[in-house]
Amino acid sequence: MKKQLNIGIIGLGVVGSSVAKILKENQDLIAARAGCQIVIKKGVVKNLSKSREIFDFPITNEAESILEDPEIDIIVELAGGIQEPFKIAKKALYHSKAFITANKAMLAYHRYDLQKIAGDLPIGFEASVAGGIPIIKALRDGLGANHILSICGIINGTCNYILTQMKEQNISFEEALKEAQKLGYAESDPSFDIGGFDAAHKLLILASIAYGIDAKPEDILIEGITQITQEDIDFAKEFGYNLKLLGIAKKDKESIELRIHPTLLPQNAMIGKVDGVMNAISVVGDNVGETLFYGAGAGGNATASAVISDIIEIARTKSSPMLGFKTSIEKNLTLKPIAEIQSAYYLRIIVLDKPGVLAQITTILGQQEISIDTFLQRKAKNKNHSTLLLSTHTCLESKIQIAIEKINNLEITQEKPVMIRIEKD
Amino acid sequence: MKKQLNIGIIGLGVVGSSVAKILKENQDLIAARAGCQIVIKKGVVKNLSKSREIFDFPITNEAESILEDPEIDIIVELAGGIQEPFKIAKKALYHSKAFITANKAMLAYHRYDLQKIAGDLPIGFEASVAGGIPIIKALRDGLGANHILSICGIINGTCNYILTQMKEQNISFEEALKEAQKLGYAESDPSFDIGGFDAAHKLLILASIAYGIDAKPEDILIEGITQITQEDIDFAKEFGYNLKLLGIAKKDKESIELRIHPTLLPQNAMIGKVDGVMNAISVVGDNVGETLFYGAGAGGNATASAVISDIIEIARTKSSPMLGFKTSIEKNLTLKPIAEIQSAYYLRIIVLDKPGVLAQITTILGQQEISIDTFLQRKAKNKNHSTLLLSTHTCLESKIQIAIEKINNLEITQEKPVMIRIEKD
Repeated sequence: MKKQLNIGIIGLGVVGSSVAKILKENQDLIAARAGCQIVIKKGVVKNLSKSREIFDFPITNEAESILEDPEIDIIVELAGGIQEPFKIAKKALYHSKAFITANKAMLAYHRYDLQKIAGDLPIGFEASVAGGIPIIKALRDGLGANHILSICGIINGTCNYILTQMKEQNISFEEALKEAQKLGYAESDPSFDIGGFDAAHKLLILASIAYGIDAKPEDILIEGITQITQEDIDFAKEFGYNLKLLGIAKKDKESIELRIHPTLLPQNAMIGKVDGVMNAISVVGDNVGETLFYGAGAGGNATASAVISDIIEIARTKSSPMLGFKTSIEKNLTLKPIAEIQSAYYLRIIVLDKPGVLAQITTILGQQEISIDTFLQRKAKNKNHSTLLLSTHTCLESKIQIAIEKINNLEITQEKPVMIRIEKD
Repeated sequence: MKKQLNIGIIGLGVVGSSVAKILKENQDLIAARAGCQIVIKKGVVKNLSKSREIFDFPITNEAESILEDPEIDIIVELAGGIQEPFKIAKKALYHSKAFITANKAMLAYHRYDLQKIAGDLPIGFEASVAGGIPIIKALRDGLGANHILSICGIINGTCNYILTQMKEQNISFEEALKEAQKLGYAESDPSFDIGGFDAAHKLLILASIAYGIDAKPEDILIEGITQITQEDIDFAKEFGYNLKLLGIAKKDKESIELRIHPTLLPQNAMIGKVDGVMNAISVVGDNVGETLFYGAGAGGNATASAVISDIIEIARTKSSPMLGFKTSIEKNLTLKPIAEIQSAYYLRIIVLDKPGVLAQITTILGQQEISIDTFLQRKAKNKNHSTLLLSTHTCLESKIQIAIEKINNLEITQEKPVMIRIEKD
């Protein structure tokens, strides 16, 4: 066992500073858990002239100087981007260093490249999904005896905060977004979060560990929460649902569904009870049944907690394979085409308020073999319009898409219908 | 890396049979995750003549035959008891074998003995706390960067089922217990579960990993749920609480509180939302904030899932120290005396319905510097009696105990007052 492990850290923003702070403040505790001292030997930043807090290690703007330093054992990359950190990772591994990253975007595209290059060198990325929740280790180690039947994750705190505020304060999406921005829960350009893309990166990482499946963000279904209105929230309340943006990975025989979308969940579903900015991931294994992992999905200290857990793991010379499998397994698994997904659906349709309207819509649904579960009709804001809110029994995604298209093409339809998927079990 | 890891399994009851079944059914998956084949070489049972399912490995009633077999790498102990399995563990370690157990009672007494004897030999006990929830690994590995501020666990499914039924079905403790027994959630002699002793064993194990603190069941506060009535449940509903049996470990400077008791939790506390037989553990770290781990706390398959996660960990030659610390840390931590615990309290007092009664009780509380937060008075079943339900602000455990004693000694008091602690944050 080494007496000391030397770290080179690239990026000293919110997370990088927290890593440095915690390694100092909790130094003795971490050394006792790791079995050796953890020392940051050097930090790398883009812009040396930018004023920042004072660290007790030297700072440079040349990544090469740590990548080529033989005394550095672990490179911790917390700078962001895709191609640049991928290059850094490759160089770190080339120089036989362990590599730790919180970079979900890079992993969404290059996780299998990295695993291949790494060989037996450890790669840590606990911080890339759901901040401080140790979900990577749980999936890879704690639930290793299980075929994973499904993963349902609230893995974007911004969206969960907005949806929670819409429910609890009866405010609009726009108002809730503004509040989230004011509190620092949403970026000034929030599209990456509210569009579901951030959640998609995280889901792809989880799906690799659960299923060993390689997919890119552009291969999967991604829908954000921008279309959600107070009417949808009201419908959810009335019929006993909670509305959440979920990342869903599901095994159906040899086929894996991967999708990000707003989802109506029965009120007794544990994950539906997770409110505010908190994250949670429900994992169902064939033996363990349902487990759920809850915590802060973002923030400097929570994310740094995950980064340091990887450092401790490497110090303990643990040798879990990066994506959970020592040898490849379940090779036959394929990504399920979006059209073949089955779900129950909620539809919000705004129509002209005149006789025969309902018949036209139910005829279309009937032609696609879609049967209605619940139905509500309300006066719309415009006096001449009605809002139809309905939920369906389970049917094929391809059929609901055809039905929506056809309903949208009806002369009586006033806006593109909004669809939200319902998870029943 | 070995091509094959040989297991000797002691005890083939519910959990042992599940381990054998899963290792067979999920053989390829587990081999891929572990990096080698896992093979049960021999099983040990007490009574060879007892009819049982047929296994594809030989069965003996002589534990020695596997403890001394040089081809066996890991001993898995699932037989129960305290002294006998402790002897087996010592022999396994003496023969340089890894040791895995689900035996919380043995660990509650002998975990530090085992860690000392084990040296670098791995000891796995993920299955000893909360069944399939990977809480040991989470505390030991995933949250390793954190000082643990508190652990609050619903770690006894029997009690959680009973309390949930009392709340949802408005039935008495006795009725709920009978139902739990009918469904197999409670033993015919349920005292070990409903008395809080099972939860105490688990809490002691968690506290060791969080704090490195050695304590025995007889050192800590243990209260079960037998005194809970529908009145307490009603009070909880009325004032916005959920009532749960919690195992609580809390750090207060250099002092650790360890206690098991029924607890009133604010309705927005995530752990209070965990119903039925499910288990959950909320862990607050100084950096990660609150995390929560939820899942099945019992059952053959869920527990076996945890046992096998330990086997995989050993196969991967992971070297986490048994109780989480490579070297000892926080040596100064001591167990906080029960009298020094601070909490808010709920009291149920049945008194004679006559003038001056309330004055007598409030005087006693005032003398102990205990101030009342909420107060309810109801007619008791006996027409001449009143039930007083009240909650207090935070005060010292020693003072509430004195107050309860004094109230109990009043002539007007009809039954020993019932006290339930309230967790406010």
